[in-house]
Amino acid sequence: MESSDKIKLIDRAITEFVELLASQEPAPGGGAASSLVGAIGVALSSMVANLTIGKEKFKDKEELMLELIKENNKIQKELLELIEKDAEAFFKVAKALKMPKNTEEEKNRRKEALENALKEATLVPLEIMRKSIKALRLLEKSLGNSNPNAVSDIGVGAVCLKAALQGAWLNVKINLVSIRDKDFVKNTQKEALSLLEEGTLLSDKIYEEVESILQIT
Amino acid sequence: MESSDKIKLIDRAITEFVELLASQEPAPGGGAASSLVGAIGVALSSMVANLTIGKEKFKDKEELMLELIKENNKIQKELLELIEKDAEAFFKVAKALKMPKNTEEEKNRRKEALENALKEATLVPLEIMRKSIKALRLLEKSLGNSNPNAVSDIGVGAVCLKAALQGAWLNVKINLVSIRDKDFVKNTQKEALSLLEEGTLLSDKIYEEVESILQIT
Repeated sequence: MESSDKIKLIDRAITEFVELLASQEPAPGGGAASSLVGAIGVALSSMVANLTIGKEKFKDKEELMLELIKENNKIQKELLELIEKDAEAFFKVAKALKMPKNTEEEKNRRKEALENALKEATLVPLEIMRKSIKALRLLEKSLGNSNPNAVSDIGVGAVCLKAALQGAWLNVKINLVSIRDKDFVKNTQKEALSLLEEGTLLSDKIYEEVESILQIT
Repeated sequence: MESSDKIKLIDRAITEFVELLASQEPAPGGGAASSLVGAIGVALSSMVANLTIGKEKFKDKEELMLELIKENNKIQKELLELIEKDAEAFFKVAKALKMPKNTEEEKNRRKEALENALKEATLVPLEIMRKSIKALRLLEKSLGNSNPNAVSDIGVGAVCLKAALQGAWLNVKINLVSIRDKDFVKNTQKEALSLLEEGTLLSDKIYEEVESILQIT
């Protein structure tokens, strides 16, 4: 990964990123994929707002839409950054796993490095979950307030953000399995499960509402 | 969109694609986003297989994994192509909508062009659904047969493919609403709903199985 490491993942072409994801290269993996899918969901949320502003018909929604775009832009940027951070965290875990373990001292140093790396590798997807929830709360506000021509895109945004949440949760969970600090495990799990529950309900609600708005006669 | 049209969407950098998606440019939209999320899901499925082959421990799974990679590669490529096709189909609809409608003849020509464009814009996301189902069926085969270190990635693949299916369905549906050919509407809806039902169940099953394999003690 040394050579390909030099180009940031988010500067790579779509095809290249997807091919790198599919390869046996350890990163990007499921965490980075979740973050990208979240960023796609947020982008769709902004698109809906962008297709609503500047139109006489939705003049009274202009302020809300501009606010949504502003908030979304921030989250979108953060989720794109988390793609990179997830890969970095993964490499730290891999590095710790390769540390020598011949003496007691080496064993302890390795154990500590691994524990810290695993915590970081947990906190990145937890952060992806936090951003995805924020984005879902914003997306909900566009329902019934935005250009109806783009209503399907609200639904696609919702399912992408749900996938980001669930995907990030699995990455939180797989790291928690190996962490020894019981308080860290308990607190992280608690927060993640709460985000997952809220987000799943919210995303399903938005998707179902969009699905029922689109009526085939 | 004329100038940006010259570079294929899938040749753009991740950041650029996401920003273009967020913008008021009519394409890429929800259909292209669904296809990309599907390609990400397929890539994760290949990654799991790639992390399984070449290891003595999983020697008896080698043949299956190579088969999965081969099939996935094909679907991944097709889903990436559908990103482009979705944008093209969208532009045809927009072009038809702009056709003149001053005379009876113009009205009829416009109506026909619009109907054909809408059908194409429906068949692209329907194809995304077909590919996503195929990918989910392949992904299911990796459960219990692949490197357990990558089990979370199977789950992330499943939620991405579900988002692709649901997102594509909303794009099929929003186009069906405006199509006059009742037989086309009926047949397309029937196939899409059947793919959606199978895919949702399959994806949920895979996700839940992964979720329960990862046990925090």
